[in-house]
Amino acid sequence: MASVIPASNSSMRSDRNTYVGKRFVHVKNPYLDLMDEDILYHLDLGTKTHNLPAMFGDVKFVCVGGSPNRMKAFALFMHKELGLEEAEEDIKDICAGTDRYCMYKTGPVLAISHGMGIPSISIMLHELIKLLHHARCCDVTIIRIGTSGGIGIAPGTVVITDIAVDSFFKPRFEQVILDNIVTRSTELDKELSEELFNCSKEIPNFPTLIGHTMCTYDFYEGQGRLDGALCSFSREKKLDYLKRAYKAGVRNIEMESTVFAAMCGLCGLKAAVVCVTLLDRLDCDQINLPHDVLVEYQQRPQLLISNFIRRRLGLCD
Amino acid sequence: MASVIPASNSSMRSDRNTYVGKRFVHVKNPYLDLMDEDILYHLDLGTKTHNLPAMFGDVKFVCVGGSPNRMKAFALFMHKELGLEEAEEDIKDICAGTDRYCMYKTGPVLAISHGMGIPSISIMLHELIKLLHHARCCDVTIIRIGTSGGIGIAPGTVVITDIAVDSFFKPRFEQVILDNIVTRSTELDKELSEELFNCSKEIPNFPTLIGHTMCTYDFYEGQGRLDGALCSFSREKKLDYLKRAYKAGVRNIEMESTVFAAMCGLCGLKAAVVCVTLLDRLDCDQINLPHDVLVEYQQRPQLLISNFIRRRLGLCD
Repeated sequence: MASVIPASNSSMRSDRNTYVGKRFVHVKNPYLDLMDEDILYHLDLGTKTHNLPAMFGDVKFVCVGGSPNRMKAFALFMHKELGLEEAEEDIKDICAGTDRYCMYKTGPVLAISHGMGIPSISIMLHELIKLLHHARCCDVTIIRIGTSGGIGIAPGTVVITDIAVDSFFKPRFEQVILDNIVTRSTELDKELSEELFNCSKEIPNFPTLIGHTMCTYDFYEGQGRLDGALCSFSREKKLDYLKRAYKAGVRNIEMESTVFAAMCGLCGLKAAVVCVTLLDRLDCDQINLPHDVLVEYQQRPQLLISNFIRRRLGLCD
Repeated sequence: MASVIPASNSSMRSDRNTYVGKRFVHVKNPYLDLMDEDILYHLDLGTKTHNLPAMFGDVKFVCVGGSPNRMKAFALFMHKELGLEEAEEDIKDICAGTDRYCMYKTGPVLAISHGMGIPSISIMLHELIKLLHHARCCDVTIIRIGTSGGIGIAPGTVVITDIAVDSFFKPRFEQVILDNIVTRSTELDKELSEELFNCSKEIPNFPTLIGHTMCTYDFYEGQGRLDGALCSFSREKKLDYLKRAYKAGVRNIEMESTVFAAMCGLCGLKAAVVCVTLLDRLDCDQINLPHDVLVEYQQRPQLLISNFIRRRLGLCD
């Protein structure tokens, strides 16, 4: 399944160089360290109720994705791939006290669900970044693994995002702060995306490309679907929009990448977005893949990230 | 627990009048009825795989809320309150094939979770409204029951929304359609909110008010919190913003009401938003209520809606 890049591979060396450094997670909030206690409400964790450095201090890879079941499956898969001794049954939902998100840890890998859409992932990221800060984690790589709609590419293709763009094809995230709009960069880590792309080449029959990812606030009208409860545009207008997106470099559409890129970038986390496409939006709007195909497609980002982590940890022979 | 409004109460009569009418759910999409099959992907339901009229045709009340566990608890509570014969164990998650949302039905009441934030509830609403349309439901009332941050009111207060406003205190929802921004009204059903307020008066020790609800895209920076991973403003700026919100009529802040009001309004669903406040944002940012108090507060909207539904069904003696 997992092929190997020679140990002398140069991108590998450069990663190892960054890996031995001490790159801490930055929170950019002068009030935080003045607080007597920090309750991470939506994770059901806190600085007084939990020993966060003991629980999370060794985390080096954080993988986030929308679906709780998929993130659990990923944690169990990673556990097997890393060949860790702990029993599979011991991998329990760390956030079991809340149903907002779920979180699993296996060795240096933390897997967390984030629900759907920018606001949902943004709440999780605020609390995750504070968690990594309180736990004094360093040299953390964070990757979103998800599903998406493709544009002009075959379903099943894995898209590694070079830059996340908004509905207007602009590489920006507009954050409302009080009643001001602040524009943030949505660039992702170029070296990391190239390293992931190199990993993908080692997996047989694994269609992968690097491209722009469009992030919308809505699955139906906002992505030009003709099958929502509301639709006020024609098929021609839809196709015109998607083709303009393609011309602007967009290869897939999802709903979290801009805020993910913006927040991770500001907080010093090396970040990547890896999504499989479930359909080609130039052909259709509905996701009607047979169940087994859908399951196999959804596993592709997990397989790629597993290979990447094993390479980083020197576990590829 | 539940007190009674006399049968001669005038608002009761007027509700009954609307109740005997035939107000169908409107989808506003000319393409929908031309489709051979409609797969409601995120609900794991479809027009070919499920007999939607048989499953859902008798639904009159739809209650939506962020947390899956809370919506299950609400369905079980309603089941008991309605005195239905079906065994409690038979109330199963109708969307068990997906972990995006959960859905429970008891008699004429449908309870669905929607996750956190505008994009997450918007996906659910598109598919729910199509479901109600395919099932040929009529005279449906829809209520969001949730939690929120209060402004200038005691924690535990239940706020019934008269109008949902955005971060700029404007009664509007901006929907991106392709690359245009369309502004939609966020008015809710005035008679329904007054009927709910009247219901609340019958419950002892049940602080309730009608006010504006502010809906934001973010829990931390967007709501002026000083305890996120990112915070670039002062305590004074935060308080100035929240006090301006109060002056504009805002009594609580949550993350779904504008799109909920806009979509339900366009599709002919009588809609209300009923949220309990968990803290006063003029006092603090963190939710640190003791567990039992938090649980009791979260039950308040459920109790109010149960009383409302029982009144509507003539089950109050």
